[in-house]
Amino acid sequence: MIYKKQYGQPFDTESVVGSFLPMMETIPYLTKEPDGFSYAMEPQDILYGLGENVRGINKRGWVYESKCSDDGNHTEGKSSLYGAYNFMIVSGKDTFGFFIDYPGKVTFDCGYTDLDTLRITVAEENYDLYIIEGESLTDIVHQFRQLVGRSYIPPKWAFGNAQSRWSYMNEDEVREVVANYRANHMPLDAVVLDIDYMERYKDFTVDAQRFPRFADFAAEMKAQGIHLVPIIDAAVKVEEGYDVYEEGVKNGYFCTNQDGTPFVAGVWPGRVHFPDMLNPEARAWFGSQYKVLLDQGIEGFWNDMNEPAIFYAEERLKKTFAQIEKYSKQNLDISSFGAFTGMVAGLSNNENDYKLFYHNTKQGRMRHDKVHNLFGYNMTRAAGEAFERLEPDKRILIYSRSACIGMHRYGGIWTGDNHSWWSHILLALHMMPSLNMCGFLYEGPDIGGFGSNTTEDLVLRWYGLGIFSPLLRNHSANGTRRQEPYRFKNKAAFAGILQLRYLLLPYIYSEYMKAALHNGMYCMPLAFAFPGDDFARRVEDEVMIGESLLIAPVYEQNARGRYVYLPEEMLQVRVKCSESNRIETSVLPAGHHYIPVELDEVVFFMRKGHLLPLAKDGKKIQSVADVDFADLRLLAYAPDGASYEYYTDDGETKDYDKPEHFVHITLDADGNTKSDRATVKVEG
Amino acid sequence: MIYKKQYGQPFDTESVVGSFLPMMETIPYLTKEPDGFSYAMEPQDILYGLGENVRGINKRGWVYESKCSDDGNHTEGKSSLYGAYNFMIVSGKDTFGFFIDYPGKVTFDCGYTDLDTLRITVAEENYDLYIIEGESLTDIVHQFRQLVGRSYIPPKWAFGNAQSRWSYMNEDEVREVVANYRANHMPLDAVVLDIDYMERYKDFTVDAQRFPRFADFAAEMKAQGIHLVPIIDAAVKVEEGYDVYEEGVKNGYFCTNQDGTPFVAGVWPGRVHFPDMLNPEARAWFGSQYKVLLDQGIEGFWNDMNEPAIFYAEERLKKTFAQIEKYSKQNLDISSFGAFTGMVAGLSNNENDYKLFYHNTKQGRMRHDKVHNLFGYNMTRAAGEAFERLEPDKRILIYSRSACIGMHRYGGIWTGDNHSWWSHILLALHMMPSLNMCGFLYEGPDIGGFGSNTTEDLVLRWYGLGIFSPLLRNHSANGTRRQEPYRFKNKAAFAGILQLRYLLLPYIYSEYMKAALHNGMYCMPLAFAFPGDDFARRVEDEVMIGESLLIAPVYEQNARGRYVYLPEEMLQVRVKCSESNRIETSVLPAGHHYIPVELDEVVFFMRKGHLLPLAKDGKKIQSVADVDFADLRLLAYAPDGASYEYYTDDGETKDYDKPEHFVHITLDADGNTKSDRATVKVEG
Repeated sequence: MIYKKQYGQPFDTESVVGSFLPMMETIPYLTKEPDGFSYAMEPQDILYGLGENVRGINKRGWVYESKCSDDGNHTEGKSSLYGAYNFMIVSGKDTFGFFIDYPGKVTFDCGYTDLDTLRITVAEENYDLYIIEGESLTDIVHQFRQLVGRSYIPPKWAFGNAQSRWSYMNEDEVREVVANYRANHMPLDAVVLDIDYMERYKDFTVDAQRFPRFADFAAEMKAQGIHLVPIIDAAVKVEEGYDVYEEGVKNGYFCTNQDGTPFVAGVWPGRVHFPDMLNPEARAWFGSQYKVLLDQGIEGFWNDMNEPAIFYAEERLKKTFAQIEKYSKQNLDISSFGAFTGMVAGLSNNENDYKLFYHNTKQGRMRHDKVHNLFGYNMTRAAGEAFERLEPDKRILIYSRSACIGMHRYGGIWTGDNHSWWSHILLALHMMPSLNMCGFLYEGPDIGGFGSNTTEDLVLRWYGLGIFSPLLRNHSANGTRRQEPYRFKNKAAFAGILQLRYLLLPYIYSEYMKAALHNGMYCMPLAFAFPGDDFARRVEDEVMIGESLLIAPVYEQNARGRYVYLPEEMLQVRVKCSESNRIETSVLPAGHHYIPVELDEVVFFMRKGHLLPLAKDGKKIQSVADVDFADLRLLAYAPDGASYEYYTDDGETKDYDKPEHFVHITLDADGNTKSDRATVKVEG
Repeated sequence: MIYKKQYGQPFDTESVVGSFLPMMETIPYLTKEPDGFSYAMEPQDILYGLGENVRGINKRGWVYESKCSDDGNHTEGKSSLYGAYNFMIVSGKDTFGFFIDYPGKVTFDCGYTDLDTLRITVAEENYDLYIIEGESLTDIVHQFRQLVGRSYIPPKWAFGNAQSRWSYMNEDEVREVVANYRANHMPLDAVVLDIDYMERYKDFTVDAQRFPRFADFAAEMKAQGIHLVPIIDAAVKVEEGYDVYEEGVKNGYFCTNQDGTPFVAGVWPGRVHFPDMLNPEARAWFGSQYKVLLDQGIEGFWNDMNEPAIFYAEERLKKTFAQIEKYSKQNLDISSFGAFTGMVAGLSNNENDYKLFYHNTKQGRMRHDKVHNLFGYNMTRAAGEAFERLEPDKRILIYSRSACIGMHRYGGIWTGDNHSWWSHILLALHMMPSLNMCGFLYEGPDIGGFGSNTTEDLVLRWYGLGIFSPLLRNHSANGTRRQEPYRFKNKAAFAGILQLRYLLLPYIYSEYMKAALHNGMYCMPLAFAFPGDDFARRVEDEVMIGESLLIAPVYEQNARGRYVYLPEEMLQVRVKCSESNRIETSVLPAGHHYIPVELDEVVFFMRKGHLLPLAKDGKKIQSVADVDFADLRLLAYAPDGASYEYYTDDGETKDYDKPEHFVHITLDADGNTKSDRATVKVEG
């Protein structure tokens, strides 16, 4: 049951698909307040949702703001990251979901001001509120996801391993990465190109010195099973003679100042304009630009800096320089020195600058701050809609940094500029189920950490979680320690853990596709799978991956194991990565366990009576193309037999729903395996 | 056994007491490298030490630099905090301690570059190396501590609760804090005054508007059992007519530029000079300044900004303004905008500025960077030596932000500008035993967190650890959410947990004094107490407090308990703080446990056969003066009886070693208690 109530005159975000819902006069659970809502929480109530944000799976105990922000310092003190995910579930005395469909700032005070009060504040009284009742937590998510539409589905190769760095500076550096991967038997499907592949940071250009024959190079890489994934930035460089700039100006496709002239900000290339992603014509035009790279053989992209990130607004920069001139003549004490440095630090991503520019939307001219959270969403929509036009039968990989519910139909996300901190392994785990609820199934963190210097053990442990994320990408910032896995000592462990990912792909892909096609969750909190288990409700460092697996990665430095809570009797699967993924299994009873996990091991847990379809022969796999999704071995603890609905398709085209993609696999009590389609072989 | 070897011509840091040690030709364990030492680690080797630093008790897996740094963002990516603690213990294949007695930069690469290599790099080949062998980890610490001299002992009231804020702006605000504490039955012994009590941030002044009759006000507070603890900053304001400035200039007591003129930097008051703390005359002069506050009834201080913190060096500031003028005329792209903002951000605490100024030491003129880590140490030594002259028979409280081994003889530390992050509860726990090893027994974190906004549950959980630290102080930054405990909802829980601290004081004080007097550890890692227990070696979130207690505080948001490892059968002591500290005890077997701990509870564990002397009648206690240290009740799980060496003294004077301060308390197998001195009563 979904209740909808409209307040004021909402901007149509197109987050919700269709408009079939009746309006309600009154809404249950929440109490209306002048500026939003409140809800009195009981001590046992848990709050789920809000997508990509700091802190726990249970969002209780902090305050969050939906306000897409370019902030690369994901400490516990932050209230906003890159996206806006206004969906939340209250679980406890009452259990219900709610969604605030509003494109500006929304604040979720989850027991921050008062321990027992949930308080939602919306910047303006122009929004739709949806309240969702359901039979269970998963049912509430299912209904919400039906409301907002089917999640993005990437090509199958995008479930392979991707290596990134800011930046691989030229063809030879990319070749070297690939050669090292291959030489070390570490599978790889993609090399990601950060901003330096472009000619002076101009979107849809390629630097002619660094990548002189880009189409040839893309083909050369593809012949080795490697996809190049270039970055696209939100902002367009101001430069005479640059076609994207000139077309945008000529057609009025850029965001404007109040007086109608194009708004000038500074980003990577210096002075830029922002394409007006909320103007349908401009969006179509921007999307069409991707063709220049598609035509060179590119099949995947990442959209960045689309909160939008602003190094400076030109207007603010000028005022700042004028003020600095004054400071240069003073005795700078605590207040004036603080004002001076604060002014400079405050040049970037200053919220006040969102009030300086405008969009021409189909609902009229809108000041940016009032629709701020739609920018990255609509940049990625620009790409997604263009791919639909340009390559109607082919899946193109796209993931974005900024997002908003609605964007999940067009692309995935990576979780932005994290750090090489142990706490960020756990943060990445916390984000997974929260993003899944909101429809963002294709997601993953920068494995090894983007900022700060990494360590070998951190990267290895991070892969212990990362191999279960749909997006598996190692990425790091300019100036930090190199962290490609072949650079470290335990090469056998890194090769093994990456091979393990590929062995798991039949399951990971199948579970992903079922979640996407049926509006389900690929990754969920324990409480969703074991709703009657009071302890499971409190577990913050284990999640379910698909229907069969519980994962409990190690995320502490120098740890040689960890505590694991099992809600029921489960099969412990211990994989010795450094020894060709030798697998040992044993049955563990429900309850608390200390599980030893050495640095070169991955341990996960299987539900009784469930199956895990694995690929065979890990050693020969170099990329997803080498994985035989039709020749499986089954892992199970199923004394009474078990069955599994296996999804498999070509991974390239879009006829997702064909019945022949669904294969019924069974294991009977005697250990005999069976598949209901001749195309898929299984053995025990 | 201590080995000493001298390299080059060391600067005498006076970290080591006496010079009785023979020089060794060769040293064991470490391999000499051109720029330091290396050691090949086995997987099971653990590295202890390095005092106040980020990450775990086991320092393995990261790189640390001894380089006192004013850095208020204690994330995992940092290599230096405020102090320099060059003592480390290797525990594993070999077990030994080592100390690098050098006042400049020392790098400890603890398996960062190579997982299995410990690599120590010293900036110059002018230092003393000490290697310490012992029978046990505690014996190694004991020998090291004998080498560097007895730890600082504060007055007994300094073990009471302190409330701080940047800043309580005037007398009435302080009165209000005290009144609120008293009204809510929350005990309090000190209110800490941050920088705004001074007249325009001038050391040893008091603002006449805000605190018009400071001596009277100090007396008024003292009559209520409250000590005022003002801050003293390292730098002296440049201002004609300000006596400290004028005396310093006249006598040449400030650090100088290469040309001999006083070095100018900017700190709170704007332009300042740094007193030359390494010049014995200047140090004595600076120490004598504390008299102006002692004379007004002040008995405690905190020394801040003594790394020294530098907002800007005047020379660098001028160059920066000139360069900004040039930037103001350019298209600021990634490199020039980054250079501009980086230049401004790099004004503060810029390592290169340490090369701009000089000290006149008794060993000659020294450029600051070569003796950098001695500055805070010698500022606190200035105070400590002055107190010895001015108040020879009285203990004065002093704690510092910057430190270096050697300073532990003169004062304690607080652990600097942490944040209101859950991870910083655990970080505070990690620092405790590491600081204890280095002689810093009197220490504690800013409870509730200095930076960022706090939450009620965070503050309450933080007290769950903080009540076991010798220094118990709630402190927070200007502009952050107020966090005095009486401002939150669960007043009974806050009152209870603070009362619990006072109930524990007979034990805490006794254990502290024994550790200080016998060069022992007040707080130690589990591995030190249970050296034969392989699992205990890996435990990073429990520590021993004194001989009887194991603590395992909750440090995760929304947690209602935690896993606890008990190396042996222990008595679980569950305290319901919100219900007048109702205590329940039960015996738990050795091994792994999940221990429920509600938000209003504190749970700790007692070793079998040990005693815990507690104060009686928590409800009437308002300050340390109300605690009767001579009328105790004993808590124990001692079926075969137990004995305890109880230390008690007046807490004010310095005749620490008198035999009558040591009381032998016994509990026999029948539950009869006995004290060998009539002055101390005990009951079971």
